Amino acid sequence: MPTLAPSGQLEIQAIGDVSTEAGAIITNAEIAYHRWGEYRVDDEGLSNVVLIEHALTGDSNAADWWADLLGPGKAINTDIYCVICTNVIGGCNGSTGPGSMHPDGNFWGNRFPATSIRDQVNAEKQFLDALGITTVAAVLGGSMGGARTLEWAAMYPEIVGAAAVLAVSARASAWQIGIQSAQIKAIENDHHWHEGNYYESGCNPATGLGAARRIAHLTYRGELEIDERFGTKAQKNENPLGPYRKPDQRFAVESYLDYQADKLVQRFDAGSYVLLTDALNRHDIGRDRGGLNKALESIKVPVLVAGVDTDILYPYHQQEHLSRNLGNLLAMAKIVSPVGHDAFLTESRQMDRIVRNFFSLISPDEDNPSTYIEFYI
Amino acid sequence: MPTLAPSGQLEIQAIGDVSTEAGAIITNAEIAYHRWGEYRVDDEGLSNVVLIEHALTGDSNAADWWADLLGPGKAINTDIYCVICTNVIGGCNGSTGPGSMHPDGNFWGNRFPATSIRDQVNAEKQFLDALGITTVAAVLGGSMGGARTLEWAAMYPEIVGAAAVLAVSARASAWQIGIQSAQIKAIENDHHWHEGNYYESGCNPATGLGAARRIAHLTYRGELEIDERFGTKAQKNENPLGPYRKPDQRFAVESYLDYQADKLVQRFDAGSYVLLTDALNRHDIGRDRGGLNKALESIKVPVLVAGVDTDILYPYHQQEHLSRNLGNLLAMAKIVSPVGHDAFLTESRQMDRIVRNFFSLISPDEDNPSTYIEFYI
Repeated sequence: MPTLAPSGQLEIQAIGDVSTEAGAIITNAEIAYHRWGEYRVDDEGLSNVVLIEHALTGDSNAADWWADLLGPGKAINTDIYCVICTNVIGGCNGSTGPGSMHPDGNFWGNRFPATSIRDQVNAEKQFLDALGITTVAAVLGGSMGGARTLEWAAMYPEIVGAAAVLAVSARASAWQIGIQSAQIKAIENDHHWHEGNYYESGCNPATGLGAARRIAHLTYRGELEIDERFGTKAQKNENPLGPYRKPDQRFAVESYLDYQADKLVQRFDAGSYVLLTDALNRHDIGRDRGGLNKALESIKVPVLVAGVDTDILYPYHQQEHLSRNLGNLLAMAKIVSPVGHDAFLTESRQMDRIVRNFFSLISPDEDNPSTYIEFYI
Repeated sequence: MPTLAPSGQLEIQAIGDVSTEAGAIITNAEIAYHRWGEYRVDDEGLSNVVLIEHALTGDSNAADWWADLLGPGKAINTDIYCVICTNVIGGCNGSTGPGSMHPDGNFWGNRFPATSIRDQVNAEKQFLDALGITTVAAVLGGSMGGARTLEWAAMYPEIVGAAAVLAVSARASAWQIGIQSAQIKAIENDHHWHEGNYYESGCNPATGLGAARRIAHLTYRGELEIDERFGTKAQKNENPLGPYRKPDQRFAVESYLDYQADKLVQRFDAGSYVLLTDALNRHDIGRDRGGLNKALESIKVPVLVAGVDTDILYPYHQQEHLSRNLGNLLAMAKIVSPVGHDAFLTESRQMDRIVRNFFSLISPDEDNPSTYIEFYI
């Protein structure tokens, strides 16, 4: 039996060296994680582990960012499943990343290798190996977490029982690479960036990271939802319609974006932001597998695909493309929302139905309180 | 008879002082313009002038950027109409703007007042007054030019015979303000900006303007069209999938956006970019007119509205909103295209139909070679 973190507490697990797809090595890597629910194995040796994969600036505390979905009796039912969420390799919430100390006693900084989504999955595989977990019942994730989930199904079909892939595509589109590269450039243009080695300097490319977040946030949120909230309103006690333009006289939506930018700067590292955004640019299920559709067709793990009708970052036709081409489609679901991409985090009622449906499809067990049937009684 | 510029040649017209909506004054302003086709007035004193309104970074040479639409026998038929296109006040292609010399012998810089779309129209009205043109048969424009066209119909119904409003909304949406403010901030964050007074310094906030353009371009172009062209291709002789992230190892779409950024930096002034983007943020047909729908209802000039199905900057529902609420809707047209917002510039075949239809609706004259009927013979 693996020794796991106390329920709901952050724990760090050493996983050894990680070799990247492009041929570099992250030495002495560590992965931070949370766990909820008791670990069990059935007679066939299959575990009840459910892996949750967080999005770009998420972390391993999925009970926080998916609070409505994860817990006892909830859609991701911790009475039944042993739910594990790791912080991605290269992140800044406990796992080894550019802002971590290198074994030589200095910061990794720009010596930290570029990682792909596949590298993220391999690091997580090493993490499971280190804990002695050999199978997982299901993997679920949205956005970058959805890309990781899809790669799990492609890379380790013998380990993964089923996958729920939310609000993502089979590969980065040129538009995504464009808008993501604009964010990376905003950080690299900040003179505090120091080519990624700013950790020792005592300064922080906060302006660049804030600029990146403003752009990103507008790709995460639908224009309908943002307009409902802010329209053309001025920020309180400010006048954006004055006779001369003043940066401190803002529309309400500008103040909102400044707030989102400041919040991210407080909680996230610019080095990790660049690294993980670059990993999203590299996302391509088809690479070295004979192309996109051949790679999708070869995935025999049952996969549920869900998307958001108003998502401009990962438009719904990309999830339709996944569902048409996956080798073993479990189900397809559309989240209908003015919120856009972030709806997989915010539309709790719809997500509850989708995730309960997912678990009922993969374990249609009448004793399982999360089954689809029981949910409708 | 007004004395007009020689056909197809840039000319500058002094228009006196311009008072802005917010209470500032642009002294001794000038407007640059182009003219094609002979000026005529009919028995009722109505002129054959057609005003073309350019978009944010456009200029008065509409025969260049609308080459397929404007000319002898074309949809905007210079055999019939006297077509005039002015460079917007605050622009940098001949009209007075932040980069122009102030009457005191120094650059305007940040002393140049903020302008609204209404100020742009008022400056153009003063331009027509200066030339002695008292009526225009039609005004046409897309994007910022569409906002100007709509304000023409709202502000000067006694002058404007009809209007064609393309790919724009009744007011800025919060999402537009957000993404446009992110562009302004990219320029203001450039240390060469000097709060808008960089003209004397001999340097140029080119990095900031380039960053703004990259973001903007991705709102002008549909993700389908960009993906068709670039997908996940690497730029020739570069490897964006290497073991360490290198800013000079790019995807093809990054190189394309760098090219777009460089091209704009060569041809456009950052001060004008900030000023005109701010004008777009201020766009609101409803301001001081009893709200949006009341203002639209009061517009009795016949208006054709057209939009693009894949436009994420001015989504098609915004043109549907215009068409539902305008007081005298002439026609509604949808441009179907993967190109997104810029389709009003690039989908020549569809635009040709729409513009010919517009002119046939406002002058269903059998002798008019641009009528809808004849077009189909």
